[in-house]
Amino acid sequence: MTREIIDVLIIGAGPAGLQAALHAARKKVSVMVLGRAQQSSIATAHVENYLGVPGVTSGVDLLEVGLAQVKKFGAEILAEDVLHLDRNGDLFLVRTESCELQARAVIVATGTARKKLKVVGEKELTGRGVSYCVDCDANFFRQARVAVVGDGSAAVDGALTLTGYASRVYLITRELKVGSELAIRLAASPVEVLTGTWVKEIAGEQAVTGVMLEDGRTIEVEGIFIELGAKGAMELAVNIGVMMDSETFTHIATDRKQATNIPGVYAAGDIAGHPYQMAKAVGEGCVAGMEAATFARKMRQSAAEE
Amino acid sequence: MTREIIDVLIIGAGPAGLQAALHAARKKVSVMVLGRAQQSSIATAHVENYLGVPGVTSGVDLLEVGLAQVKKFGAEILAEDVLHLDRNGDLFLVRTESCELQARAVIVATGTARKKLKVVGEKELTGRGVSYCVDCDANFFRQARVAVVGDGSAAVDGALTLTGYASRVYLITRELKVGSELAIRLAASPVEVLTGTWVKEIAGEQAVTGVMLEDGRTIEVEGIFIELGAKGAMELAVNIGVMMDSETFTHIATDRKQATNIPGVYAAGDIAGHPYQMAKAVGEGCVAGMEAATFARKMRQSAAEE
Repeated sequence: MTREIIDVLIIGAGPAGLQAALHAARKKVSVMVLGRAQQSSIATAHVENYLGVPGVTSGVDLLEVGLAQVKKFGAEILAEDVLHLDRNGDLFLVRTESCELQARAVIVATGTARKKLKVVGEKELTGRGVSYCVDCDANFFRQARVAVVGDGSAAVDGALTLTGYASRVYLITRELKVGSELAIRLAASPVEVLTGTWVKEIAGEQAVTGVMLEDGRTIEVEGIFIELGAKGAMELAVNIGVMMDSETFTHIATDRKQATNIPGVYAAGDIAGHPYQMAKAVGEGCVAGMEAATFARKMRQSAAEE
Repeated sequence: MTREIIDVLIIGAGPAGLQAALHAARKKVSVMVLGRAQQSSIATAHVENYLGVPGVTSGVDLLEVGLAQVKKFGAEILAEDVLHLDRNGDLFLVRTESCELQARAVIVATGTARKKLKVVGEKELTGRGVSYCVDCDANFFRQARVAVVGDGSAAVDGALTLTGYASRVYLITRELKVGSELAIRLAASPVEVLTGTWVKEIAGEQAVTGVMLEDGRTIEVEGIFIELGAKGAMELAVNIGVMMDSETFTHIATDRKQATNIPGVYAAGDIAGHPYQMAKAVGEGCVAGMEAATFARKMRQSAAEE
């Protein structure tokens, strides 16, 4: 790999990730933001309680402004999802849809992990066949039949992962929205792609027994993985040992400097806890960006001294 | 007092205080902001690293927008300094330049406490006659001669307090900027006001021995209190037992919900720690505002049930 090591790699292009990029870039370190701004939950919202921005402003417009600010400050933006996060000694390895990157510090700013499908059976059967985390739960479905629902990279990557565990893997999708590399890997895999349809209902009494589709078909499965949007932070983080908060287990635990239990890994925004507010996200992004930049700079110095 | 108890009282009208007001007001509680926006450190700054606000924007313009947003959301703004903070059972008592108020929850968002004079002798003699906190240090100057320097309410109130301790109290001021009540109390006091001048240098080897003024005069004092701008948060907080952070003792210690050690008291912005950034201030203001509103509502409910 000829690519230079990135100082601060930010996963997520919502308010927390973009604000982190602004502050990190200011500290004269190399900064890359990975993610699609339009996947941020703010993209579909209207904002009126963010100081300094009067009236009611669309989240999309705010993100547009933010992206331009980030570029002006010299940070790079790659509009790709992150599929995998790993460690290699002191460095972090990040696999996106199209490339592999190495970073000295990582900020997880992906937003909340669990996007709901909102269909009958989902809530009742969560934890009894319904899962939101392939990397957490794949092992429970050895030799079972499973389905993954979603249109993005998280769904495709999840389905590919599951082929290593389950006896049969369906991918339910309205229309796939992934890069060509992932599409090629999918085509070469045993995953059965059910396209142009969606989940209507999840069937089962004590546990999942099947999925009813919008096109009238029913498939028999013991598990269904709901993977909407980008790869959830939980799945990325679990792989490198980042701890969740001990109360809800749905947020990444951070201290007041947005540091996680893993040195060099920070979290900011909704994934770091309530309230889910733009102001709180930018505040945490600011702190995480500055801290990550300082961490990366120290790493670089000590590497140069050795 | 006929005035109703205020649910959430916010001390400080900078980014943290105003963002706190927006979020508290949204939760349908009564909110009052005390302070002068133009005293915020952002007022004299230019902002270009705040997400969603492109280009370089003057801090004053951002505060103007913020004040309008806060008013629109139904929070009250009283452009007065807070002189004293105390407790009365479950309630907090706040004395401003013109009135006394009661509140169920208080957010301290005053900015950093110690504004420097930046003159010869200041740094060298800090803690050896130079002080930034009348309420903390007045007791060390019993029967001594002291000077207070400043133009605002903190200076006048500090000088008045010192008349209860010191043998002689000078107030050095370019031009007093205080309300009529405080001016009347000053006029009736033994404080000697040296107006139209300023401190040029603080004299002393091991300890303060005197102050040289810009107009050529020298006064002999053993202590000089530097009280620029509004009453520092440290002085307000120390009175009700709010704990400082154990590392630097210059910031209020808060948890991730911006709560201090005193139930119902929150802190946000620069006073809650580094980095001194607008984004971090609004983030903490957001959290503090929502938490304080929830606290106040619970207080009101439990009072109604009794």
